[in-house]
Amino acid sequence: MSTRRVDPDRRERIIDCAVELIASQGVAGTSHRKVAALADVPLGSMTYHFPCMDELLEAAFTRFAAEVGERFAAGLAGEFAGAKLVAALVELIHDDVLDSRRSLVLTMELYALAARDARFRNITQGWLEISARALERHMDAATAHQVDALIEGLSLHRALGTAPPSRELTAEALRKILGA
Amino acid sequence: MSTRRVDPDRRERIIDCAVELIASQGVAGTSHRKVAALADVPLGSMTYHFPCMDELLEAAFTRFAAEVGERFAAGLAGEFAGAKLVAALVELIHDDVLDSRRSLVLTMELYALAARDARFRNITQGWLEISARALERHMDAATAHQVDALIEGLSLHRALGTAPPSRELTAEALRKILGA
Repeated sequence: MSTRRVDPDRRERIIDCAVELIASQGVAGTSHRKVAALADVPLGSMTYHFPCMDELLEAAFTRFAAEVGERFAAGLAGEFAGAKLVAALVELIHDDVLDSRRSLVLTMELYALAARDARFRNITQGWLEISARALERHMDAATAHQVDALIEGLSLHRALGTAPPSRELTAEALRKILGA
Repeated sequence: MSTRRVDPDRRERIIDCAVELIASQGVAGTSHRKVAALADVPLGSMTYHFPCMDELLEAAFTRFAAEVGERFAAGLAGEFAGAKLVAALVELIHDDVLDSRRSLVLTMELYALAARDARFRNITQGWLEISARALERHMDAATAHQVDALIEGLSLHRALGTAPPSRELTAEALRKILGA
């Protein structure tokens, strides 16, 4: 107990450091020992908070998904319609979602875990629901689902391909889905 | 030389076994030793063919991407237009692309590598080009790019979410993008 009173943010710091370690070295390169060193906590405290690696990964990816989800929601927080809505979505796809290498790596690592393990699909499902709510402020639920899929695919193909991205192609696809 | 004459398919078998090992245990759980054991080849022969893990991963994912790309192209090999084209694409999304857990895991593992390492983006880019050519038999290049992104996003969200998939929602999104 005394240790926790002296260092009350320890658990939070461990989670933050796990996120950064996964971003730089992948899940495969992340261990209790490395996270403890980065967070500057004794290994015993690390395993007290997170007895097994899966619990740490769940906490780390839950935090990451919440962060990205909030940023996505913030980008759609205004009052948009028609061309303004298309422009806001194009900006999210080209300048924000998966834009940084860090976000892309973390997202793909999460998807790889979720592909194998249903517990991590709760995190990806939660993320989908945050996106859906943000989009549904501007369109019906079915269209929101379609737009979210389009955003995912365009962002991924931009990030994983070597061809230059085209904002106009993205805008045109969105206009068609939105019927704008 | 004598060993290779006796077992001429060794290299191919090593690659096949690497694909299956990645599918079941992820890149993190794949090692030279495990692949050698699965392929029933001496460890020395394994490292002769693939001195480092990245070369083996490149060969494995190149093979996997070619397989999936060919299946995708085969699904679009007929003469389709309008409602028939939409139906063929819905079938690809709901019954084929990323449908098996094996394909999903392999795809996400490849994307996670590509997110970090440009060498693996050559493989994802090659895969995008195969898909583009298959789609461009039925539509112009810009529309093909949009449809491919939509297929990616809908397939991923179906696989990584927990909500039931809707074939009608997929068909509607495709009709809008295709202008059908």
